[in-house]
Amino acid sequence: MTESINAVSKKSGLPPGSLIHVGSVLETVTRMTVIDYSEDNVKEKEIQSVDEFLKYKNRDTMTWVIIEGLTNVSIIEQIGAIFGIHQLVLEDILNTNQRPKFEEYDDHLYIVLKCLLPENEYFSVTYEQISLLIFKNIVFTFKEKKDDLLYPILQRIRAGKSRFRSFGSDYLTYAILDTIVDQNFILLDSLDDEITELEDSLLASEATPDMLSTIQKLKREVISIRRYVSPLRELIAEMLRSESELISEKTHIYLKDVSDHAIRVVESIELYREILTSLLDIYVSSVSNKMNAVMKVLTVFSSIFIPLTFLTGIYGMNFEYMPELKWEWAYPILWTVFITIPVLLLIYFKKKKWL
Amino acid sequence: MTESINAVSKKSGLPPGSLIHVGSVLETVTRMTVIDYSEDNVKEKEIQSVDEFLKYKNRDTMTWVIIEGLTNVSIIEQIGAIFGIHQLVLEDILNTNQRPKFEEYDDHLYIVLKCLLPENEYFSVTYEQISLLIFKNIVFTFKEKKDDLLYPILQRIRAGKSRFRSFGSDYLTYAILDTIVDQNFILLDSLDDEITELEDSLLASEATPDMLSTIQKLKREVISIRRYVSPLRELIAEMLRSESELISEKTHIYLKDVSDHAIRVVESIELYREILTSLLDIYVSSVSNKMNAVMKVLTVFSSIFIPLTFLTGIYGMNFEYMPELKWEWAYPILWTVFITIPVLLLIYFKKKKWL
Amino acid sequence: MTESINAVSKKSGLPPGSLIHVGSVLETVTRMTVIDYSEDNVKEKEIQSVDEFLKYKNRDTMTWVIIEGLTNVSIIEQIGAIFGIHQLVLEDILNTNQRPKFEEYDDHLYIVLKCLLPENEYFSVTYEQISLLIFKNIVFTFKEKKDDLLYPILQRIRAGKSRFRSFGSDYLTYAILDTIVDQNFILLDSLDDEITELEDSLLASEATPDMLSTIQKLKREVISIRRYVSPLRELIAEMLRSESELISEKTHIYLKDVSDHAIRVVESIELYREILTSLLDIYVSSVSNKMNAVMKVLTVFSSIFIPLTFLTGIYGMNFEYMPELKWEWAYPILWTVFITIPVLLLIYFKKKKWL
Amino acid sequence: MTESINAVSKKSGLPPGSLIHVGSVLETVTRMTVIDYSEDNVKEKEIQSVDEFLKYKNRDTMTWVIIEGLTNVSIIEQIGAIFGIHQLVLEDILNTNQRPKFEEYDDHLYIVLKCLLPENEYFSVTYEQISLLIFKNIVFTFKEKKDDLLYPILQRIRAGKSRFRSFGSDYLTYAILDTIVDQNFILLDSLDDEITELEDSLLASEATPDMLSTIQKLKREVISIRRYVSPLRELIAEMLRSESELISEKTHIYLKDVSDHAIRVVESIELYREILTSLLDIYVSSVSNKMNAVMKVLTVFSSIFIPLTFLTGIYGMNFEYMPELKWEWAYPILWTVFITIPVLLLIYFKKKKWL
Amino acid sequence: MTESINAVSKKSGLPPGSLIHVGSVLETVTRMTVIDYSEDNVKEKEIQSVDEFLKYKNRDTMTWVIIEGLTNVSIIEQIGAIFGIHQLVLEDILNTNQRPKFEEYDDHLYIVLKCLLPENEYFSVTYEQISLLIFKNIVFTFKEKKDDLLYPILQRIRAGKSRFRSFGSDYLTYAILDTIVDQNFILLDSLDDEITELEDSLLASEATPDMLSTIQKLKREVISIRRYVSPLRELIAEMLRSESELISEKTHIYLKDVSDHAIRVVESIELYREILTSLLDIYVSSVSNKMNAVMKVLTVFSSIFIPLTFLTGIYGMNFEYMPELKWEWAYPILWTVFITIPVLLLIYFKKKKWL
Repeated sequence: MTESINAVSKKSGLPPGSLIHVGSVLETVTRMTVIDYSEDNVKEKEIQSVDEFLKYKNRDTMTWVIIEGLTNVSIIEQIGAIFGIHQLVLEDILNTNQRPKFEEYDDHLYIVLKCLLPENEYFSVTYEQISLLIFKNIVFTFKEKKDDLLYPILQRIRAGKSRFRSFGSDYLTYAILDTIVDQNFILLDSLDDEITELEDSLLASEATPDMLSTIQKLKREVISIRRYVSPLRELIAEMLRSESELISEKTHIYLKDVSDHAIRVVESIELYREILTSLLDIYVSSVSNKMNAVMKVLTVFSSIFIPLTFLTGIYGMNFEYMPELKWEWAYPILWTVFITIPVLLLIYFKKKKWL
Repeated sequence: MTESINAVSKKSGLPPGSLIHVGSVLETVTRMTVIDYSEDNVKEKEIQSVDEFLKYKNRDTMTWVIIEGLTNVSIIEQIGAIFGIHQLVLEDILNTNQRPKFEEYDDHLYIVLKCLLPENEYFSVTYEQISLLIFKNIVFTFKEKKDDLLYPILQRIRAGKSRFRSFGSDYLTYAILDTIVDQNFILLDSLDDEITELEDSLLASEATPDMLSTIQKLKREVISIRRYVSPLRELIAEMLRSESELISEKTHIYLKDVSDHAIRVVESIELYREILTSLLDIYVSSVSNKMNAVMKVLTVFSSIFIPLTFLTGIYGMNFEYMPELKWEWAYPILWTVFITIPVLLLIYFKKKKWL
Repeated sequence: MTESINAVSKKSGLPPGSLIHVGSVLETVTRMTVIDYSEDNVKEKEIQSVDEFLKYKNRDTMTWVIIEGLTNVSIIEQIGAIFGIHQLVLEDILNTNQRPKFEEYDDHLYIVLKCLLPENEYFSVTYEQISLLIFKNIVFTFKEKKDDLLYPILQRIRAGKSRFRSFGSDYLTYAILDTIVDQNFILLDSLDDEITELEDSLLASEATPDMLSTIQKLKREVISIRRYVSPLRELIAEMLRSESELISEKTHIYLKDVSDHAIRVVESIELYREILTSLLDIYVSSVSNKMNAVMKVLTVFSSIFIPLTFLTGIYGMNFEYMPELKWEWAYPILWTVFITIPVLLLIYFKKKKWL
Repeated sequence: MTESINAVSKKSGLPPGSLIHVGSVLETVTRMTVIDYSEDNVKEKEIQSVDEFLKYKNRDTMTWVIIEGLTNVSIIEQIGAIFGIHQLVLEDILNTNQRPKFEEYDDHLYIVLKCLLPENEYFSVTYEQISLLIFKNIVFTFKEKKDDLLYPILQRIRAGKSRFRSFGSDYLTYAILDTIVDQNFILLDSLDDEITELEDSLLASEATPDMLSTIQKLKREVISIRRYVSPLRELIAEMLRSESELISEKTHIYLKDVSDHAIRVVESIELYREILTSLLDIYVSSVSNKMNAVMKVLTVFSSIFIPLTFLTGIYGMNFEYMPELKWEWAYPILWTVFITIPVLLLIYFKKKKWL
Repeated sequence: MTESINAVSKKSGLPPGSLIHVGSVLETVTRMTVIDYSEDNVKEKEIQSVDEFLKYKNRDTMTWVIIEGLTNVSIIEQIGAIFGIHQLVLEDILNTNQRPKFEEYDDHLYIVLKCLLPENEYFSVTYEQISLLIFKNIVFTFKEKKDDLLYPILQRIRAGKSRFRSFGSDYLTYAILDTIVDQNFILLDSLDDEITELEDSLLASEATPDMLSTIQKLKREVISIRRYVSPLRELIAEMLRSESELISEKTHIYLKDVSDHAIRVVESIELYREILTSLLDIYVSSVSNKMNAVMKVLTVFSSIFIPLTFLTGIYGMNFEYMPELKWEWAYPILWTVFITIPVLLLIYFKKKKWL
């Protein structure tokens, strides 16, 4: 069955400002991981309660908190209370139907975006909403799922060789954005494969109804991906325009790099959309071509045998006065006609390029 | 019958500035409800005449006046006179063919928009025009219909727990806008269901003329919804740009939230429009595919039996000199031919994938 | 015959600045009416020569001059000389192929626009070009035709109840613009009726070639209407941006109202264009559906009778050794076959939903 | 053969800054005409060498130099040297694949545009590139061809009545632009005729393959015209924005007039493009309608005669035991059947509107 | 097989900031050429190690370094270290999936763009990424391939006649951009040829499935070319807006010239896209026309011979009481009918223009 584009928003009807998880429940248990690092040190810990954050609040070291699973609303509520997050931001974190956006608050920034996760077999995409709360020394990452999406960043922090440890929360933000945007390239590669294969088999003119539904499925996916990818460009542009102290001048070049990648993704998506549209046109042409071929066979058969059958009909009549019936050479002569007519017609059809 | 897009504007021809209700009369009797609330107190009263408003005019408490039914022009006229509303605004309130817009006056704001009400059976939408007049402590809401659209807001005011009571008329305005915009999500869900179902049955290749009219009906609805929903984004942007004292800084974040929802609605609507357009293409392809199948059956039948009939015609002729007629094995041999030819043709058609 | 979109511009080749009437001559005699009014008084007079204007030139009362019929070039020339109008403006008044525009001069404003006049039978539109020259106390209105388009305004001036008499030439300008824009709604209503009717009969799947030409005719009309209506929005926006003293602050709200109407008209026109485009698609689908139905009938008939005819052909052959011919039950058995085959095929076609 | 859109740029590969004529050689001999005029005087002279210009260089009178034919590169080079023209401008004058543009230099302006010249028979357009170099008292006009395009301007200068003699080089520039833009209207008229005729014959439903190629030819022409006409609007807007002393304030109103004409041309071109696109759709529909008609004839014939032929087949069989063959009334009864079946089928097809 | 639009980005997953060559390896060995020139002198040398650059670093002469082949990452790394290039720029140089862009740094500029290289047989394009690093007296050019693309520039430097030697690195940059952009015209010419040929043979109505795949192939190429060409305009606009001292005022006119060329290329590309789209429509129409022709032949044959065959069937029946069988003139009369019916039908079909 075709996937829904507009997730049922079970909140409609509720007063604004009610905290409730909206979306398909991907994880029933919430996992919280704290990575605390400075130039010299890295600590990594899985914590059970929000109270354990408190000690990180006013430290000098960078703290990255990853919260995976959004069903435990009270955790979000507590974080909101401790760090002074606006009620609407908390709602947005919990409601997984958000459009990617960037918002600036007094002492923190809020980013929400979608990560595209390609599925294995057949081309199909799932989305994971990722929210970032960026404070001076703390970055919260809220994810719907426990997966290893951010694992490479963790690795780099642990390794300690990269720029991470000496940069602030803006560089960590960049690293997360970069990871999420680059995720799209994997998707585009598999999309490219599917479309190219489809195009090749379509032009080899074996249009089948299956192809039609593949085209429509891919088109829907492309439309749906574009929806989540295209706001990224504006999101990063807003970050660059922002005058917040939380985004330092030297991070700009990194954000521009992510922006370049995002533009490339959006451009590719647009190209695929165009190609899919023209594939549909080609499909239609292909079906017409096939029908044409069928029609020609019918016409050739009918045009050759219908006149001949008429001839046999004549000499099958039972009139008493039909002189030809008694001629000795009538039958062989008729056979000559039976052979001549088709030959002439076949030459005619050949000339018309129907054969 | 298909619904009209352009409501007959019975006013054309009349001088501008004439107060007259334009639209289908949905309610013949006007109901006026006054909700007067402060942080400590809530009073709710159904009133009969405009004079009863007067005592609320210069009070400190927030007053929300809901006027349902627009046929009683004199009520609107009286309110206009008492509160100094421009003649053209009064006209706009009464003429229910308005485009959503926001206007700023000296001591009040005027907002008019459309609420989308999904009908129960078959997908079809009706619209209710809602006008808001926002004064410092008074908000007028003019509705075409008596329905329970604003009931949840009333509930929250009565409950007294929410932010309502401590906020001014801008927060009440936000709450009303939010309710109207979220109404769209319900509509989108049912639209999504219809389109998805249509797409599935179309790709299962059972294209029927009914589907064609469903596609066109949905397309018309989508076009028509977009018309009323897409100006919302600009409307809220103008409210945010406005320097009126009636919209306080701290309400901005709430309005931005409504704006995000409006953008999501508009984006979904655009997606549906695209999908419906490609469904029409698929419908056409589907019909062609079907015709192709029909043509193949015809061609297979004709190509097999027409040559055979010709053969029977030959030996049905009455020539005196036809040696085959006397051969003992002629008839069985012919039967072999009758069996061989179709088998060969069927193999040929099989190879061409016509079977 | 289809109407031309680009009127023959008989001026090309002439030096710029030559005064000559360009357009189809709608009136051979020019009628000039002067309406002179103040708060207390209204005088209305049909005049014969331009000299009679002179006495109104420096008066305090508002003077409205309506000139109907543009063939008498010398009248336009004289007015130009007396009131200091630029040569190019005079040319624009006379050349009825103008695009709607607003121009600001030292002591006067110039507006030119198109009024849409629906014809009675069959949907078809004619255009009348209307030029306005707006001075402090004088408004000139140049019309191509003698009709009662501006009659309602005259009525209101005569009645004296409305705001007219106490406002200046900007309010009169507003009243004229409003009348012209509202004219469109009548047109849209009849357009709406035509399109809705067409859509209904198309979806009832009786696609006839007539419908095709109706769709194309309506599409052309819509394209052509849009051409004259869409610049109106910009025209009024320019008037609002203008810093001319001739447009007072308090008229702005009225102009915005006209602008709202113009936007509604343009939006409707766009909707109709979209709907007509999809109607063409539906027409094509409808024709395909019909062809499908025809093909099925042909296929059903041929598939049933061609095999049966083959069978009769077999037993019509004249071989001497055909044992079946002598069997007593051969003929009745064959009849059973004649009945069984069609029944089986009909069941098969029923299952394929071809019947 | 279809015309090329992208003229072979024989320069690619050459170093930038090499002066060489690029384009089809329309004139092998260059003609230079000098028109020198002041309010009292007009002198007109055909000159042979560039040196003769020199004496006009610092005069007070207006000098207009028309150079027709671009093959004599040395003339352009000499003018460049004498008047201090940038190498790249000289290249642009000689390379006739320029996009219309306006450039401002210290003491002169450079304008290059395309003049559209309609051909006589069948609709087809050729382009002539015209370059203008505008100095305080000198205007150079470089044309590819010797034709009478600018003849009307010459006439007006000679006549001396018009504003020409008292205005400077900006008015002359305006006059040339006006002449070139108005040239388009002639073209649009003939384009309009072709399209209208095509539309009428298409809707009279006689779609022939010829029409298809006419549609495509016109579409290509329209696309190609648009390419050269649409930059004109921006070109004039830049002239109006320019702060060069060479364009005086009082010429602005004339330039705006040309701009209005250019906009009208572009709008018409866009309309034609839309109409041609929908004509292609109508062509397709028309072909389908025709095929539908053909199919119906085939189906009616086949459906009527195939069952009847089956019946004759039955009684043509040679079974010994066929009691009907001996009945006296069998043959007349069969004839009744032969008449009844077609009548019933014809009624059925009539009801289905196939006849 | 169809080419991929989205090159596999083998970097995804790697930490940002890792230097690694991404792209198909076109050259396995890197060649470095240094051209050092001043107004009087030109030195040209192929060097083996990066250290040899050092002596050019602070000289007054212009130095142009061409690095061909990007597999030797350490060379890029060393240059980056010596000249203080940002890590992300080095990555962009090595990753050959860049979108054309211009970036400004403290003491240098970075430009990356794609050069289009047409292949010889059949229309197909390959891309070479070219990066420029522009310092005050040094310009680095990084190319993927060893080819003679920049050879003409080298020639001009050696010749010494042109402006090269007296201009700085901005003029050299211009010369390189100009060479790359002009490269497109060659491509456009061959594209033009292919499209024109395709259009001509399509309108000569010999639509074959091959054409369909040619249209799609060309469309894909055009889409793909546009992708790399269209950002060029913005790139040069940014260079012109830039306030860097590295781009002197007097180079602006040259850059504008390149920009004009880029715009012309983009416009041509857009035209081709439009034409290809309409070619697809024409292809579909052409196939329909052909099917129509086939259908007519079938219908003419069937309509003529099926009724005649029915007649022969009648007199082939074996009823005992068939008086006509004994009539002497029956057979000749029937022949008259056999000739009359086809003649009448042929006249009818002629009138319907089916023949």
